[in-house]
Amino acid sequence: MARITSTANPRVRAAARLRGRRERDRQGLTLIDGVRETLRALAGGARLREAFVLPELLADQEAQALRERLAEERVPIVELGEDAFAKLAYGDRMDGVVAVAETPPRSLEALILPHQPLICVVEGVEKPGNLGAILRSADGAAVNAVVVAESATDLFNPNIIRASIGTIFAVPVAVASSGEVLEWLQRRDIAIVAARVEGSVDYARADYRGAVAIALGSEARGLSDPWAELARESVKLPMLGVADSLNVSATAAVLFYEALRQRTAAARAQGYSTRRPRMRRPMTRR
Amino acid sequence: MARITSTANPRVRAAARLRGRRERDRQGLTLIDGVRETLRALAGGARLREAFVLPELLADQEAQALRERLAEERVPIVELGEDAFAKLAYGDRMDGVVAVAETPPRSLEALILPHQPLICVVEGVEKPGNLGAILRSADGAAVNAVVVAESATDLFNPNIIRASIGTIFAVPVAVASSGEVLEWLQRRDIAIVAARVEGSVDYARADYRGAVAIALGSEARGLSDPWAELARESVKLPMLGVADSLNVSATAAVLFYEALRQRTAAARAQGYSTRRPRMRRPMTRR
Repeated sequence: MARITSTANPRVRAAARLRGRRERDRQGLTLIDGVRETLRALAGGARLREAFVLPELLADQEAQALRERLAEERVPIVELGEDAFAKLAYGDRMDGVVAVAETPPRSLEALILPHQPLICVVEGVEKPGNLGAILRSADGAAVNAVVVAESATDLFNPNIIRASIGTIFAVPVAVASSGEVLEWLQRRDIAIVAARVEGSVDYARADYRGAVAIALGSEARGLSDPWAELARESVKLPMLGVADSLNVSATAAVLFYEALRQRTAAARAQGYSTRRPRMRRPMTRR
Repeated sequence: MARITSTANPRVRAAARLRGRRERDRQGLTLIDGVRETLRALAGGARLREAFVLPELLADQEAQALRERLAEERVPIVELGEDAFAKLAYGDRMDGVVAVAETPPRSLEALILPHQPLICVVEGVEKPGNLGAILRSADGAAVNAVVVAESATDLFNPNIIRASIGTIFAVPVAVASSGEVLEWLQRRDIAIVAARVEGSVDYARADYRGAVAIALGSEARGLSDPWAELARESVKLPMLGVADSLNVSATAAVLFYEALRQRTAAARAQGYSTRRPRMRRPMTRR
């Protein structure tokens, strides 16, 4: 196919419209920016419709790996000229690829979970950078699902996708109201460990084995009252300086890796093979 | 003093110029945005020259606490009208106070460290949000100093101050080249534990007791080669998903709290009182 150089090209314009939330919701599509991000998304099972590339920027080894993966998945590659690519690429960041991806399902009912899952619930977190970093840590620590309660933003917003380095496609996610999430957790007998500034239990003394949801609140207000009331434990990190909390994504990482440590030790004690004991990531239903 | 309503007021304009790095460097002053941030900075020993406020936004309890602290510290309070405040306030975020603060010293030589310090070195980290979150975690976990190697940005840039929620004034900090930092660590017999994607040691099996520097690399490139070569151990977190690393500030939080756990246990075993064993924060020399 010939290279597209016009910024008025209908295919480029249609993709660029996906920067707006309304168009993403209407089409069930979103945009992934970046080579690494697109590779991670593919590794996580993302379905790509097409990938727009600026060939001059796709020179290194990772970019070559991406081209090969796209070919394997039969994703159409559309080569653009610099102006056309700049119209589509986000802000000042241009690293050679913008992919159009199907938005995965986001309902609680669509989650398929293992026996005794480890879940993360984030209530009202507003900053894309924080939500992306939480998803990235959840991917690393084999958290089985991330549930966003009272989401202010569109979860598959390109800024969150980028901050997650594409891992948002690898981690099963759901969006619902806090009431729905609480009801869903109780119905499934999943215990809540709530991270709260007023928590009474040192995080390292809480129990994260079995079916557990780690609940985190918004940057400004923390968790709403029902979470504190229904939590099995309210935990906090030692805060030895002048502040009373960490950044929410830093708290998440510390709690996820403490949970992984405990769950790995428990699985070893029960004679499971230790590599990814009872924590293999299930895919969401399509 | 009468309230200032003109955006052309020289005092307001002089403060607004501190949004630019050159003016900050020239004057040795910077800006702190926000009530919580200013309170934390004061708790950390920041010296404030003046505080501009928009009284209508300073209504809640925390704002009242700030007014009292400013009065105790004899910091002049300048009341502004809405337009004048908007000229000074940063971006879309206005929560009622912008304070002018002296920039603390940032040289390695100005750091006063305890016996067997725990230090964090960050090399080439670019995003203010990440550096701010690292400082906030360092404050929480009683890291004795944060040393920034090969800084691309001005450390006391208002975006970093805000992302650190003002804790940057509580944690002793220094800026130097990687070569200088490595030489300084070796001269003081401080062992390097390097966080690297290619690390060979699980982070929880490394030893963070004694005099230790946790070294973290940039978002895009990680640590430069000399760090890997001179490190006592190169550690990594278990990565059970599709990505090969966490966000750098998430990695920092997990390592800081693992170090705190080990150091607290070691101090207990030696019969120290456990509250803040050998980790009391020293101030930098003024």
